[in-house]
Amino acid sequence: MIENILAVPKSSWTSGKGPNHHIVLSSRIRLARNLDKYPMNAFQSEDNGQTVLEKIEKAVVELELIEQECLGIYHMDELTSRQKQILFEKHLISREHMDEKPNKALLLRRDEAVSIMVNEEDHLRIQVLLPGLQLDKAWDEADRIDDMLESRLQYAFHEEKGYLTCCPTNVGTGLRASVMIHLPALVATKQASNIFKTLGQLGLVVRGLYGEGTEATGYLFQISNQITLGRKEAEIIQNLTAVTKQIIEKEEEIRRIVYNETPLQIKDRVNRAYGILKNAVILSSQEAFNLLSEIRLGIDLKILDIGVNIEELNELMVASQPGFLQNKAGKTMEKLERDAARAELFNKML
Amino acid sequence: MIENILAVPKSSWTSGKGPNHHIVLSSRIRLARNLDKYPMNAFQSEDNGQTVLEKIEKAVVELELIEQECLGIYHMDELTSRQKQILFEKHLISREHMDEKPNKALLLRRDEAVSIMVNEEDHLRIQVLLPGLQLDKAWDEADRIDDMLESRLQYAFHEEKGYLTCCPTNVGTGLRASVMIHLPALVATKQASNIFKTLGQLGLVVRGLYGEGTEATGYLFQISNQITLGRKEAEIIQNLTAVTKQIIEKEEEIRRIVYNETPLQIKDRVNRAYGILKNAVILSSQEAFNLLSEIRLGIDLKILDIGVNIEELNELMVASQPGFLQNKAGKTMEKLERDAARAELFNKML
Repeated sequence: MIENILAVPKSSWTSGKGPNHHIVLSSRIRLARNLDKYPMNAFQSEDNGQTVLEKIEKAVVELELIEQECLGIYHMDELTSRQKQILFEKHLISREHMDEKPNKALLLRRDEAVSIMVNEEDHLRIQVLLPGLQLDKAWDEADRIDDMLESRLQYAFHEEKGYLTCCPTNVGTGLRASVMIHLPALVATKQASNIFKTLGQLGLVVRGLYGEGTEATGYLFQISNQITLGRKEAEIIQNLTAVTKQIIEKEEEIRRIVYNETPLQIKDRVNRAYGILKNAVILSSQEAFNLLSEIRLGIDLKILDIGVNIEELNELMVASQPGFLQNKAGKTMEKLERDAARAELFNKML
Repeated sequence: MIENILAVPKSSWTSGKGPNHHIVLSSRIRLARNLDKYPMNAFQSEDNGQTVLEKIEKAVVELELIEQECLGIYHMDELTSRQKQILFEKHLISREHMDEKPNKALLLRRDEAVSIMVNEEDHLRIQVLLPGLQLDKAWDEADRIDDMLESRLQYAFHEEKGYLTCCPTNVGTGLRASVMIHLPALVATKQASNIFKTLGQLGLVVRGLYGEGTEATGYLFQISNQITLGRKEAEIIQNLTAVTKQIIEKEEEIRRIVYNETPLQIKDRVNRAYGILKNAVILSSQEAFNLLSEIRLGIDLKILDIGVNIEELNELMVASQPGFLQNKAGKTMEKLERDAARAELFNKML
């Protein structure tokens, strides 16, 4: 079953169907949880890690989540590096979860909207990832799954502080809400950095496409809450949703203005991006991301008619990444070889 | 008849049929001549200019060149700026000949291989422009026409110095031989500038596409003799031909090496150029030239199969220039409008 997941670049979030999907690619809720009476992962021995994994697996079996929720259990040490790479490229696991440490596992729902990392930084990281802007729906789902697991597992919880986590920034609700947002107009008009500064003052943080420590790629940003302590879950989600809506409005406004004032220039940007993706022989991952961003803008502005929709664009974004490319080719490839395979993919698919 | 010349971007030199046309676009011979007993143009009054023009026209009529050589006579002051611009873009007149000064004329053979400027810097500038590397053939033709004119016109000639010309650099043979050469591999590998330095030591000079004072555009260079005094015509032509053949060999060698060592990178350059020309919405003249250069390289290396041959490429080079674009549109256009019209032309023609 893991082969099916790895073979297709589709995921729940790639469907391009959620609200405001023209600007918000996906909404993510992540809950950090730890089992009571077991040391945090940073300090635990291998034996402890195994016990934690076993307890969690036992809960999953008892709750019949495999049948009821179509959940698959994958032990990370049974996966190849390339398989883990693909799960990362699909945003189903974190970069840390790719590390060669024992007792890591992934519980993945068949639609890939729910993925639970076991023994990442925390014992449990419950993630719900949906297309478009629907943090509340993602929260409802994460909360439901969390409640189920909590019915069988004793979480580390402090009456005043809330859920205890490995990293202090996650203590409290253990909740991180984030949106993946596409802001080509705000970037092009150099307004993004000012907006991002304001977000910092609101307790929000802006990161690149693959979370902490990564650069933003192709006008795509991840906005998430910084603080989890001393706030209610609903408050965090409402706050991020409201801010995201404001950013969407601003981005839409600037897109209209820029397009009305310099329609030829915008069409030129978009068409060139298409021309390069369609014809290049070597394409780095970074350049492909940037060009795909232009295509995304062109499709939204309805100035590029190439018979490609947002869903296919999202899938291309996933399919053009190193792990996917190598998996499809069935071999390890050097950078130049990957860049050539990536170019071939775009030549063919666009 | 001038309308026919202005309407089509074809010229004798654009046919892409001469020897070594894969690297040498065209060969040009130009003879500077002045009528004896009339002041040089730089010093002459308007009346003198008129007499010079009349004497030359009389010679043309008496020699029956209009009938025998299919020569057309065009008075520059009867042409619009745009018409003159197009003649310049086709390399049939110099930039100076576009100036609004009286008594300038152009004698142009129907195949556009022979063009004679009257009252440019000198009273007569006889130009023969052929495709590929065939300076000797161009010289034979220029010499033949020069002899005919000389049979009716008394040239200013000094027994020791040779033909007298307005600018001292032209005194002697009055001959300038030049080739238009395409050197993408030598430029890309940064060997062109060294070669150009050596050319200077050999009494040759390298200029841009449109002669004196212009920048080289799109890896296209004009190489010509600097010295006209104290050398025989045959010597000048043999010298330039021999040097050009060496440069061709070098360029061919480097193309092979670069292509063998980095085939993907070369294909990438060429294909991207095609992708941009085919899809851009705004294209400056400079960028279009550079991209056409890549296409030219791709066609020569047989790595780009877009059903376009060198002749069509040469025509596109002419057709995409400001005068031509505006003539086709039937109106004066601002830069952005021209850049958009140019992009449209390439989108359609490639």
